[in-house]
Amino acid sequence: MSGRNIVIVGGVAGGATCAARLRRLDENARILVLDRGPHVSFANCGLPYYVGNVIRDEAKLLLASPALFKERFHIEARTGHEAVAINREQRTLTVRDVNTGDEYTESYDALVLSPGAAPIRPSWPGIDLPGIFTLRNIPDSREIRAWIEARKPGKAVIVGAGFIGLEMAENLRHRGIKVTVIEMASQVMPPLDPEMAEYARQRLEAQEVKLVLGDGVAGFAAADDSGITVKTQSGATFQAELVVLAIGVRPETQLARAAGLALGERGGIRVNEQMRTSDPHIWAIGDAVEVKNILTGQWELIPLAGPANRQGRVAADAICGRATRFRGVQATAVCGFLGLTVAMTGATEKALLRAGKSDFASIYLHPGHHVGYYPGAHAIHMKLLFRTSDGRVLGAQAVGGEMGVERRIDVLAQAIQMKATVFDLEEAELCYAPQYGSAKDPVNFAGMIAANVLRGDVELASWGDLDTTPAMILDVREPHEFGAGSMQGSVNIPLSKLREQIGKLPHEREIWVTCGVGQRAYYACRILTQHGLQARNLSGGYGTFQVRYPDRVKRPRAK
Amino acid sequence: MSGRNIVIVGGVAGGATCAARLRRLDENARILVLDRGPHVSFANCGLPYYVGNVIRDEAKLLLASPALFKERFHIEARTGHEAVAINREQRTLTVRDVNTGDEYTESYDALVLSPGAAPIRPSWPGIDLPGIFTLRNIPDSREIRAWIEARKPGKAVIVGAGFIGLEMAENLRHRGIKVTVIEMASQVMPPLDPEMAEYARQRLEAQEVKLVLGDGVAGFAAADDSGITVKTQSGATFQAELVVLAIGVRPETQLARAAGLALGERGGIRVNEQMRTSDPHIWAIGDAVEVKNILTGQWELIPLAGPANRQGRVAADAICGRATRFRGVQATAVCGFLGLTVAMTGATEKALLRAGKSDFASIYLHPGHHVGYYPGAHAIHMKLLFRTSDGRVLGAQAVGGEMGVERRIDVLAQAIQMKATVFDLEEAELCYAPQYGSAKDPVNFAGMIAANVLRGDVELASWGDLDTTPAMILDVREPHEFGAGSMQGSVNIPLSKLREQIGKLPHEREIWVTCGVGQRAYYACRILTQHGLQARNLSGGYGTFQVRYPDRVKRPRAK
Repeated sequence: MSGRNIVIVGGVAGGATCAARLRRLDENARILVLDRGPHVSFANCGLPYYVGNVIRDEAKLLLASPALFKERFHIEARTGHEAVAINREQRTLTVRDVNTGDEYTESYDALVLSPGAAPIRPSWPGIDLPGIFTLRNIPDSREIRAWIEARKPGKAVIVGAGFIGLEMAENLRHRGIKVTVIEMASQVMPPLDPEMAEYARQRLEAQEVKLVLGDGVAGFAAADDSGITVKTQSGATFQAELVVLAIGVRPETQLARAAGLALGERGGIRVNEQMRTSDPHIWAIGDAVEVKNILTGQWELIPLAGPANRQGRVAADAICGRATRFRGVQATAVCGFLGLTVAMTGATEKALLRAGKSDFASIYLHPGHHVGYYPGAHAIHMKLLFRTSDGRVLGAQAVGGEMGVERRIDVLAQAIQMKATVFDLEEAELCYAPQYGSAKDPVNFAGMIAANVLRGDVELASWGDLDTTPAMILDVREPHEFGAGSMQGSVNIPLSKLREQIGKLPHEREIWVTCGVGQRAYYACRILTQHGLQARNLSGGYGTFQVRYPDRVKRPRAK
Repeated sequence: MSGRNIVIVGGVAGGATCAARLRRLDENARILVLDRGPHVSFANCGLPYYVGNVIRDEAKLLLASPALFKERFHIEARTGHEAVAINREQRTLTVRDVNTGDEYTESYDALVLSPGAAPIRPSWPGIDLPGIFTLRNIPDSREIRAWIEARKPGKAVIVGAGFIGLEMAENLRHRGIKVTVIEMASQVMPPLDPEMAEYARQRLEAQEVKLVLGDGVAGFAAADDSGITVKTQSGATFQAELVVLAIGVRPETQLARAAGLALGERGGIRVNEQMRTSDPHIWAIGDAVEVKNILTGQWELIPLAGPANRQGRVAADAICGRATRFRGVQATAVCGFLGLTVAMTGATEKALLRAGKSDFASIYLHPGHHVGYYPGAHAIHMKLLFRTSDGRVLGAQAVGGEMGVERRIDVLAQAIQMKATVFDLEEAELCYAPQYGSAKDPVNFAGMIAANVLRGDVELASWGDLDTTPAMILDVREPHEFGAGSMQGSVNIPLSKLREQIGKLPHEREIWVTCGVGQRAYYACRILTQHGLQARNLSGGYGTFQVRYPDRVKRPRAK
């Protein structure tokens, strides 16, 4: 009978998981969960959909009540109570009742910090005007709902085009509100590589979400009719009756910092592989901690629910003396909006470059989500990053319709976890029936394309060098495809005529080959190199060109 | 310039892939594809949907024509030409033009056999009556379509409840035809474990597909009005105007057998890891060969398109002298019908038992395909098999609605390929947003449940021993759930009252705990064992009981 005394600060996601796991491991511990908010274990990922009225019943967002914690787990969950100070020497916590202001002390044998992260709310002029919201918890979403119902806003500005911002864009459109999204970066969805985010930008614009990229908010001013004028750094102004800030979150570290716990270089709480802080009696989990990215080896702030839950289990196991280890984060994420699914796992190209890596290559592909002959196939646009020295899969991004995107990213996430190479992906044996995929799944194709590169069967041309290369650009699509839109300066010889026209092609300079999605260009490269020519494949073909160089598409003249 | 001379017998799936791969590897080889049918590279998996008019345009099923083979690949694809004999000494093939009957000789340096497998058509009485079909190629499906259009059958009998039989059931229902499926085995979908196939049986019956299980066809007789009487071994008779035989396929081995090539114990062509037959100049791929099951180590006949394509690549690589190896088959498959998706990968429980394995355990779970608070969640019924000595994942089966089933099986397929353990599944980091999954994905849950068993945190009760056990059966659901349907003889103490009523429970005998899906029972087991009681979890709870013992559900009396 241990009778150990465990206090958990923060009862959402990781904190709730940790508490329940602790009880399963130790029937005799005293477990106290403190949360300064009115709820424990609510569905924070569902909040945008509650604002959008996709989820109509607030009660559905409450995953577990203090009563359930008590009955099922024999855990006291004390909401409306905030931990305001840690006295590490005495192993006590100063707790404030947020309703009465009364303070009292709780002792602990083990303390778990799960305070989460707060939406960033810069001190811009006018930031406190009514109608400007952030979204973290149920009261926040209730306020936005009430504002929408009372003011019936016709126009909204969302600041930030990250995952939450775009989910909010969808949900406000769902409420019939016109949406403008202002993003400081030059692309939407900043975690993605820019050319992959381009698909999202196109979808948003097609769905009449106005995008302002590469421009930051400078401030807000009250406008006539109780509206808000949003001013940007470039001097532009936008009118709105509702503003939502979705520019990211900042880890809640005041308590840890004041207690002298070590913080990391990114400003999160620093923990070891057992989620233990620099104090051996204190653990920390969730959005407040820095995690090791397993692909880049860098410390990062990655606020995701899945890892938070895993961390809660690891901390509970460690507190109970079990051998355990948090393996780090690979940043698997998915976001859906306006009929599009965007998903990613592992490292992006920009993250690898930022981490100083150069031993990698990337390929593009645009396979159907199922066979083309079965009705309803749509393209999945994929990018795969892999290590050139040994073929290890490093990361993947995919964009497509509402089905099949997250499935392929999940397979690649599992592959990355298991240290798979692109050669393993070639040999993956995945579900196939006509309405579900292809006998060669997009994952197989990704593996084959990358393996072809590593085996030296085809060399890649670098899209980034397209402007400066002296190479001939050869498009091997059929003339009717070429005529409908092509790369400026490219020459068209369809694959079916390539062998007979091969004598026309130059031996003295490289030939960079493109087609619709990269497959015929690969075939062409194999023909050309076997005939002694210097060929490279522009990976992903015209499908990739269109999103990398939307301004440089040569289209037929109107007749 | 090699100028080697390669002949491929059979131009569908593996044969077509092999031919195209050969050309990419060797621009100078002479490559000849022979097919006795009228088409090469057609979409055989799409045939049921062409019969069902889901795919309306026959041309869509033709993936590549001889003209395309010629133009794109410089490959001659000769349809309507059948290889009738191999002269291994001379390395020649006797070929017959099926239209003229003329025979001629082709020589080869390398020969690839890709003849496929033929639908089994037993010599039952009346088997040749008009209106009795099998489905292997486009002419077959054209005949069935013509029969449906001419005869407007009101009732059809499908013989065989395997994947193709059930796809046909859906497609004939789609044409407005009443369907009876007769299956010799006592379950539908014989590759699955029976309790997992039960979900499919329930769906078929709910969708008014009549099932006759555990009864074989004895013969057919002509009935009035140009109908057919189907007689079964039990003496039952069924009237139909259309019969489709879907009782499996038999590898086409005549050519190989006549040439004295080694066959395997299952009747397929025996090949090594390079897909080479017992003749060093002859390779064989696809449905005609036996493959090694990587989970059971057994030779099997597994007619699947994905492995056939991989084999085609391996054979091409081997012929061109590249290091290559076919890694075997893990039998990943998916089948959709009537709103249900059934998928599997790796070994089933029955396959493991058949292979003499005992070092394994299985668990059941019934997670939502996405979070319950987001509209439209449906359950995925899963079974996971794993090795008890080291936790290696051995196989998985899942049944659910139209979304998310194949995704989880694909992740598990990738896990199996990479030799993952259930501990790896616990730590999988998969896509999560409310409309796509849960922060703890079904794959994570499967891993956690299995890992709990392996770590000794909970012991499993064996469903198979339920009839004979002296254990107390404890149901920890809430009274209203228990009242709506329960296991005969079970006692109800809700989890929330378990600690206070623990004194009532017996110390001298085991307590087998159940709930809705197994989660609360696990919590209960943890409480009970920590209080010194002997508890075991009935994995999957009442959700599993209902499909294992549909006759033994105790339901409330009507009032």
